[in-house]
Amino acid sequence: MYSYQTLFSFTKEIFTKIGCSEEDADLATTVLLSADLRGVDSHGIARLVGYVRLWETGRINAKPNVRIVHETPSTAVVNGDSGLGLVVAPKAMQIAIEKSTNVGTGWVSVKNSNHYGIAGYHAMMALKNNMIGLSMTNASPLVAPTFSLERLLGTNPIAVAIPANKQPAFVADFATTTAANGKLEILQRKGLDAPLGWIQDKEGKQTPNANELKQGGALLPLGGDREHSSHKGYCLGSIVDIFSAVLSGANYGPWVPPFVNFLPLPENPVGEGIGHFFGAMRVDAFRPAEDFLHHMDNWIGRFRSAKAVEGEQVIIPGDPEREMEKERMEKGIPLLPPVVKDLEELSKKFEVKF
Amino acid sequence: MYSYQTLFSFTKEIFTKIGCSEEDADLATTVLLSADLRGVDSHGIARLVGYVRLWETGRINAKPNVRIVHETPSTAVVNGDSGLGLVVAPKAMQIAIEKSTNVGTGWVSVKNSNHYGIAGYHAMMALKNNMIGLSMTNASPLVAPTFSLERLLGTNPIAVAIPANKQPAFVADFATTTAANGKLEILQRKGLDAPLGWIQDKEGKQTPNANELKQGGALLPLGGDREHSSHKGYCLGSIVDIFSAVLSGANYGPWVPPFVNFLPLPENPVGEGIGHFFGAMRVDAFRPAEDFLHHMDNWIGRFRSAKAVEGEQVIIPGDPEREMEKERMEKGIPLLPPVVKDLEELSKKFEVKF
Repeated sequence: MYSYQTLFSFTKEIFTKIGCSEEDADLATTVLLSADLRGVDSHGIARLVGYVRLWETGRINAKPNVRIVHETPSTAVVNGDSGLGLVVAPKAMQIAIEKSTNVGTGWVSVKNSNHYGIAGYHAMMALKNNMIGLSMTNASPLVAPTFSLERLLGTNPIAVAIPANKQPAFVADFATTTAANGKLEILQRKGLDAPLGWIQDKEGKQTPNANELKQGGALLPLGGDREHSSHKGYCLGSIVDIFSAVLSGANYGPWVPPFVNFLPLPENPVGEGIGHFFGAMRVDAFRPAEDFLHHMDNWIGRFRSAKAVEGEQVIIPGDPEREMEKERMEKGIPLLPPVVKDLEELSKKFEVKF
Repeated sequence: MYSYQTLFSFTKEIFTKIGCSEEDADLATTVLLSADLRGVDSHGIARLVGYVRLWETGRINAKPNVRIVHETPSTAVVNGDSGLGLVVAPKAMQIAIEKSTNVGTGWVSVKNSNHYGIAGYHAMMALKNNMIGLSMTNASPLVAPTFSLERLLGTNPIAVAIPANKQPAFVADFATTTAANGKLEILQRKGLDAPLGWIQDKEGKQTPNANELKQGGALLPLGGDREHSSHKGYCLGSIVDIFSAVLSGANYGPWVPPFVNFLPLPENPVGEGIGHFFGAMRVDAFRPAEDFLHHMDNWIGRFRSAKAVEGEQVIIPGDPEREMEKERMEKGIPLLPPVVKDLEELSKKFEVKF
């Protein structure tokens, strides 16, 4: 177990060493480690070495000029200037929040960014302002649309955070595939089979073998197959891709650059970097905030107390992650041996104590 | 086969007979029949008798004062005044479009409405303005959240329409369940089994028997079961419910009133009528329209030409419905015998030639 504070200091110092300002290093660390705290281990400190490698190959600008390049009272396009997505995204979300303060809602599409950590962090920034927050991002192509043999979409997550009063907030944060890539990585590592409906092989047939992903296979959109409405997951992933990248001028579909530095960039890019999309809506732009919050409490209470299958309960989106955050903040964050090894190497390379 | 013109004249006259203005009857008919044209038969003229019955029991106001009750530059809440959802919805969407013209985007939540036809119609209203359109609605509870034995959500559809230039528009329009209720009705009528993952029985177990829905069972959220991420479908349905009803002051969750007049209204309502949510975003609020449209053409072209499974192709959302509309406008609209019978009864009752 590693304390949040230990991992925070280390990570922040690494980001500082690659050239981030003190403020940006702090922000990037907060965003990155929010994944570890919330139990989304695939998107947290395990990726620190990946960001560093992208910086080493010149694909991350540690001192970006994150700026609005086009705007209206309720919208903006932000150029992330190849900065860390961990820094670009919260800055863009902040712009959405400011626009929402001014005209009721704010909507920001971002180009020229890269991996932004967990989608939920950015959506949740809206909560303290009594706003609904929305966050989505495209990602490198791993997913085959219904009937496709080609990977054309990323796992393209959607997060929506909705404030309540006495109840904790509703926070949905999910990949638009049947299973997030992190779950597949666990199966691959352990040599376990995946349920059918998660993966297809290179001929487009469902397979339980997670390693088929490395042999021309693909993740499947939420739904799994046509009979279970995988076209709906394909629609959702497409909407995320278009809002994040066609609106902003980022790369979309099969042109989205990979996160890992050892894969080549796609040829003939159609835009700049990867794209995100953020939204903020003041609840009092619709009805008095106290009315909204009262009814959200009632909504959450009613769903939480629903009669459930024996031994289970109806879970409110965000509950498991919030409980995990409380636990890990107190007891520490577990790290897998390969992650520790990566961090030790970073420690040596940058002469930062781990 | 019935010609669109025949069905249009008949339906419009029925709406006029129940007291709609000429203009509202025209609008309601256009919206209702757009479902028949697009092949979504469950939401079209088959429901005409249902609307009439709701009017007969005093649940529909044929002369509503559809009005804004709260607004900011980019948002509004509209009170549908118990009008036909077929009339309330396009008027609310028009408000979203006007706000988008003014400040880049417009977002309208609606209370005190009822069934609004197909979600896609309203989203597509944005297209001719070079806007992205969004439409969602809650509906009477038929769906059990993951692990729930109770039905707490409707099939709560989401529609997103995105304009292109040379390519036809991208139009996604889907229920947030594995299968829309219309598909279940077909199975019930034919006595056929449903695939597992569509329905659960009253004990929360998956069942192929579509009739379990009438015996305490429920539709399942997109994903089907926990292993295939039904919690994501549950999240989506919840977001639709909250945006449509908690933002506006309509009924939500298990309190949403049923469409059919023979079921009692839920006790202790938490709001007024059912709720919808609409959005419009000018594409040139993000980047020059011609750039956006050019890249949408490229996006659509790339996906449409993807290598596909033998005998299949990658379908762009909206393609099948657009092709159906063309065909049915030319060749006519087929109606099932029970629908024809309903229309003949309406014909007698209101003395309108069918």
